[in-house]
Amino acid sequence: MSLARGYAAHTHTDPLVPFEFERRAVGPNDVRIEILYSGICHSDLHQARDDWGGSIYPMVPGHEIIGRVTEVGSEVTRFKVGDHAGVGCMVDSCRHCDACQHDLEQYCAEGATWTYNGRERESGAPTYGGYSDHVVVEQRFVVKVSETLDLKAAAPLLCAGITTWSPLRHWKVGPGQKVGVIGLGGLGHMGVKFAKALGAHVVMITTTPEKGADAKRLGADEVLVSRDAEQMKAHAGSFDFLLNTIPVSHDTNPYMGLLKREATMCLVGVLTELDPPLTGGSVIFGRRNLTGSAIGGMAETQEMMDFCAEHGIVSDVEMIDIKNVNEAWERMAKNDVRYRFVIDMATIKA
Amino acid sequence: MSLARGYAAHTHTDPLVPFEFERRAVGPNDVRIEILYSGICHSDLHQARDDWGGSIYPMVPGHEIIGRVTEVGSEVTRFKVGDHAGVGCMVDSCRHCDACQHDLEQYCAEGATWTYNGRERESGAPTYGGYSDHVVVEQRFVVKVSETLDLKAAAPLLCAGITTWSPLRHWKVGPGQKVGVIGLGGLGHMGVKFAKALGAHVVMITTTPEKGADAKRLGADEVLVSRDAEQMKAHAGSFDFLLNTIPVSHDTNPYMGLLKREATMCLVGVLTELDPPLTGGSVIFGRRNLTGSAIGGMAETQEMMDFCAEHGIVSDVEMIDIKNVNEAWERMAKNDVRYRFVIDMATIKA
Repeated sequence: MSLARGYAAHTHTDPLVPFEFERRAVGPNDVRIEILYSGICHSDLHQARDDWGGSIYPMVPGHEIIGRVTEVGSEVTRFKVGDHAGVGCMVDSCRHCDACQHDLEQYCAEGATWTYNGRERESGAPTYGGYSDHVVVEQRFVVKVSETLDLKAAAPLLCAGITTWSPLRHWKVGPGQKVGVIGLGGLGHMGVKFAKALGAHVVMITTTPEKGADAKRLGADEVLVSRDAEQMKAHAGSFDFLLNTIPVSHDTNPYMGLLKREATMCLVGVLTELDPPLTGGSVIFGRRNLTGSAIGGMAETQEMMDFCAEHGIVSDVEMIDIKNVNEAWERMAKNDVRYRFVIDMATIKA
Repeated sequence: MSLARGYAAHTHTDPLVPFEFERRAVGPNDVRIEILYSGICHSDLHQARDDWGGSIYPMVPGHEIIGRVTEVGSEVTRFKVGDHAGVGCMVDSCRHCDACQHDLEQYCAEGATWTYNGRERESGAPTYGGYSDHVVVEQRFVVKVSETLDLKAAAPLLCAGITTWSPLRHWKVGPGQKVGVIGLGGLGHMGVKFAKALGAHVVMITTTPEKGADAKRLGADEVLVSRDAEQMKAHAGSFDFLLNTIPVSHDTNPYMGLLKREATMCLVGVLTELDPPLTGGSVIFGRRNLTGSAIGGMAETQEMMDFCAEHGIVSDVEMIDIKNVNEAWERMAKNDVRYRFVIDMATIKA
């Protein structure tokens, strides 16, 4: 066991406050990681506020973790002390179901063990996330981070990155395709970077014309303002794939009309009800598909980290001191961040 | 031009009444068909009542037409006088868009010309359907009907049949798969027959336990009562494909939970809003797909007719006299038909 220092929410209305807790001892397959940077994901706020129900308190959020290995168990082969390492949304899964055997641990039939707001499979102890000074994780759920990546800007790859990378890869986005990324936030800005790097013609689809210039800087070839009926009409039936990163309930029907026959829109941001409701006609006419995707498996996460190292891709981040985390959450709730807050975890020692 | 006798609705509240109108002269590529049988589809009622908006009156409904060829144009190669022939939901399309070139005329970029409640592409004249004594249709939109098929019971194949056949084929339903058919009506009973004939393990999913015995007679291997939470739980995550034939707004979320990871539910019955709304979580967890399908292309419709002849598949029908069509509609609205009304069109001459 080791004493960890972090920040926790104690109820769904309280701000985050300093919190000390125990991390488990390093087992044979475990890696202990000193956390250097921890990204702030919109789902941290959702879970701390119990928006999805079932939240466990005290809750130490954070599942975009970059750090340095400080100890490895006797069976650990993939890491050595001093390596840079990353931890994302999961820290365990059943390992034997069909999904786990296909490297899709996020769809584990028994439910993956989330990095925080979850329970360890054997002990049932709550899991605590990355808004803390160190973490102990089984090696399967730790990815290698290239020495060439900007570590602080790499943290959001572990959630915002893999959440957009996985569907773009699964639906085989590439050259010759017209791909739309809906919503320019933490997820959307990574979606634009990845879709461009994969060779697609990328259209940023946003309600906010002011974001157009930034979208182009990030790699978008075109900007489509979804509130402009003329522009929507001009793009009707023209997209091969849509990556929908909007994190709140919205009308999906106008976006479905942008798809080519038999093309797919993939939701990655909104877990709750789509309201106003989808119509049957939106999928029946043109045999279009609405689907979704949750983060990505560990093998795929490593693939993404390696791709990012090779192509020099990281997130656009704004660094903060852990003491300012509540203020950062307030700004994130107002979409006032370009495009991801990252906590400099050295500040927890101050 | 030829004078046709039929039944028409003159407003969205009136009953159907006798109506005489002109059919166009037989052009070089046209086939004139004496209508022997005309199936009654739930969408006839929807359109006569203007449930989807834009209805054209007077309206002669009917798009499940079986008849005998009585005249062919000079360029017609596929039919001769005396052949049995079928006409479904479409009588024309642009012929040159990507969909038309891929034998998917139902998804024509310019919009297919519907058999009734549509407008002919050149003249703009209203189209009139199968509740009438004859019809003139371009040969591409006419299918051959085997001499071995029971003609009256074959009529519903032209809509209920192809609407369920097309998605089962497109999503490659076959042996080794567990397939659910949701809703046991005109479409659902064909879905069960086809899925079984294609070799799948077929589960009839219904709200009505009383339909179980009939579902098994039609070919279902199992019956799942969707209002039974225990049964729904036992089947969770187990289906390779779901064919959802429910024709009205309903909660799709419980059905999505029946799908395996990455599996698909296809809507064929409901064009309007899905209420209560779909949640993002229903597609995000397990990377599941919600899609839809509209009837089928003409080549595919011929394929289905040939398959039906080979396998002896027709609809379960209840024959009516055209004079009783309004009463039949009332019964259909109450789901009181097993499973399709068919008008014996000889009765229009009486």
